[in-house]
Amino acid sequence: MIIGSDPILLTPGPLTTAPATRAAMLRDWGSWDEAFNRITQSVCADLLRIAQGVDEFVCVPMQGSGTFAVEAALGSLIADGSRVLVPNNGAYCARIIRILQTLGIAHTELPLREDQPATAQAVAAALDSDASITHVALVHLETSTGILNALEDIAETCRSRGKRLIVDAMSAFGALPIRLDGSGIDALISASGKCLEGPPGMGFVLARRTLLEDCAGRARSVALDLHDQYAYMRQTSQWRFTPPTHVVAALRAALDQFLAEGGQRARGARYRNNCRALIEGMCALGFKPFLAAEVQAPVIVTFHAPVSPHYDFGRFYRAVREAGYVLYPGKLTHVETFRVGCIGAIDANEMHNAAAAIGRAMQALGVALRP
Amino acid sequence: MIIGSDPILLTPGPLTTAPATRAAMLRDWGSWDEAFNRITQSVCADLLRIAQGVDEFVCVPMQGSGTFAVEAALGSLIADGSRVLVPNNGAYCARIIRILQTLGIAHTELPLREDQPATAQAVAAALDSDASITHVALVHLETSTGILNALEDIAETCRSRGKRLIVDAMSAFGALPIRLDGSGIDALISASGKCLEGPPGMGFVLARRTLLEDCAGRARSVALDLHDQYAYMRQTSQWRFTPPTHVVAALRAALDQFLAEGGQRARGARYRNNCRALIEGMCALGFKPFLAAEVQAPVIVTFHAPVSPHYDFGRFYRAVREAGYVLYPGKLTHVETFRVGCIGAIDANEMHNAAAAIGRAMQALGVALRP
Repeated sequence: MIIGSDPILLTPGPLTTAPATRAAMLRDWGSWDEAFNRITQSVCADLLRIAQGVDEFVCVPMQGSGTFAVEAALGSLIADGSRVLVPNNGAYCARIIRILQTLGIAHTELPLREDQPATAQAVAAALDSDASITHVALVHLETSTGILNALEDIAETCRSRGKRLIVDAMSAFGALPIRLDGSGIDALISASGKCLEGPPGMGFVLARRTLLEDCAGRARSVALDLHDQYAYMRQTSQWRFTPPTHVVAALRAALDQFLAEGGQRARGARYRNNCRALIEGMCALGFKPFLAAEVQAPVIVTFHAPVSPHYDFGRFYRAVREAGYVLYPGKLTHVETFRVGCIGAIDANEMHNAAAAIGRAMQALGVALRP
Repeated sequence: MIIGSDPILLTPGPLTTAPATRAAMLRDWGSWDEAFNRITQSVCADLLRIAQGVDEFVCVPMQGSGTFAVEAALGSLIADGSRVLVPNNGAYCARIIRILQTLGIAHTELPLREDQPATAQAVAAALDSDASITHVALVHLETSTGILNALEDIAETCRSRGKRLIVDAMSAFGALPIRLDGSGIDALISASGKCLEGPPGMGFVLARRTLLEDCAGRARSVALDLHDQYAYMRQTSQWRFTPPTHVVAALRAALDQFLAEGGQRARGARYRNNCRALIEGMCALGFKPFLAAEVQAPVIVTFHAPVSPHYDFGRFYRAVREAGYVLYPGKLTHVETFRVGCIGAIDANEMHNAAAAIGRAMQALGVALRP
């Protein structure tokens, strides 16, 4: 790494942003000012276009991390007396369950292994076995492993059965194709600091207009009231409470680059290249991905930790960081793993370099991998 | 204004930050990385020192705007069966009442006029007339007018009666002296983008340690669970959910400048100078402040709008903005007003210039003020 430069973040948000994105934070904006409100409006319009939801959906930004937007969606869109089915194959699915518990919303878990994707078949069976289920809350891409759940098929399953579908697409939005209009999806949540490559600090909910407009006074929170944020913004073109102005401006810059790159198709292709280079490089070192290739999304890859008395994640992490790359710890309870993100303003060269740095770190720690 | 430069924000957050504060956002940080966690820890340590609460209090940062931190404090610290007294002389007091209503926490309003400060006498009378009141929720400096409530005396009133006191010090923290240790205050809330002159995007709660540690599982929200944020951070030194990394780093830079300037005393003195220059300049033009001088805090000043058929806030705002200054609309329902902030990385020269620009705008609009 260049002396004095910052390490590359191979973490699935916060991630490495482009210099032009960070430079957009060098300006202060008044939250009441028309120029700033136009930025918010253009960000929302672009998010709806990216998700192909211009006709039937509205975009409501929300201050805070992605989880704040997830809780705002669940707590504002789901009426008392509902029951939510949650396919669970990871920590972010479990977080949805915890939010529903805390908000007092009835729910049914569809338990899955962490390497087992949620499928339309399993969701259909669960829906058909319990008529009291009104909603499905699905994680599109479970960041705790990197597994891809079958969003499109599950959306069709929900549509055909008249069930509402709320999707946490935190780590997928912008990288994987999503089409909201005409789909069975009723709300989709993501955040600034993931595949759109902005800084962290705001989330957003793309909600079916007819559904959201029916939710006045339903939220269990003032700060996380999605309907009130929507209604206030529609009336005034301003955020209800102080917006993270610099983050919004940087997301605008990140979206400009997203569009210049060629939109979701180009972003997805770059990440697939990154992911392929990473897995090739790591497999050449003797590492094994936790997931089967057919369910691995090109966003974050979980690798089994080496089985060696010399391996210690803390030492490994620090050695790789000194070579210029910040890794991510594993989030599984029953197997020791670590994770490497493929997203951010980086290309496959960085993935090759990162794999090489990981190889050198293994050597320095005296960890043998090749059998 | 210099061609191509940005207008000065005379708004009480977002406000004009120093170039060094914004420059701190030019770097990406991993949320799991030790270097970033040290920034969070040092920010929290400094906030406790500024509030003189090092011995008895802990600092819990919270993603989102200041209101998110207020709701997190109210929803996490107040047990079922409590009753909260809310002295109400403005929109931020009313927001506390709305949060309590939404969370289902019993409360009693102490209604005041918008130009009438909350006093210890009035709070004592309300407490003495209803033994079921367990808490007081007080706005220190009501931003909707700029009025200062009698925090120190009210804290003593609460302490001597054994009532818990939660203080929204959003617009006061850093500018006005606060001493938490040994006081009757149990929690105090503020945010990054006010008198500390950071960018907006995070709030924080300084909570009495013994009180907070008693609040596990009490929160009505997952995202806004203050105890869980505290417990997780103490265990891991990380934020529970993705932090607004760039905002945290910029707040660190803003705190460095705050300390270099001379801390709260110097910051408060600069703002008092700014406020004096503003009021003098505006009075010379014929404007009248809404508040009496003895209850006016040196943070934001509300002025009566001119009584003239030629006056229109939108046109006035745009004319002053073209001269380089962004004003703030009034927030009172029964009188037409506008507001001018005295805070941010600006000195009295800017206040003189702003008053002069306001004078020119009045002339251009054909609004006569001097009687």
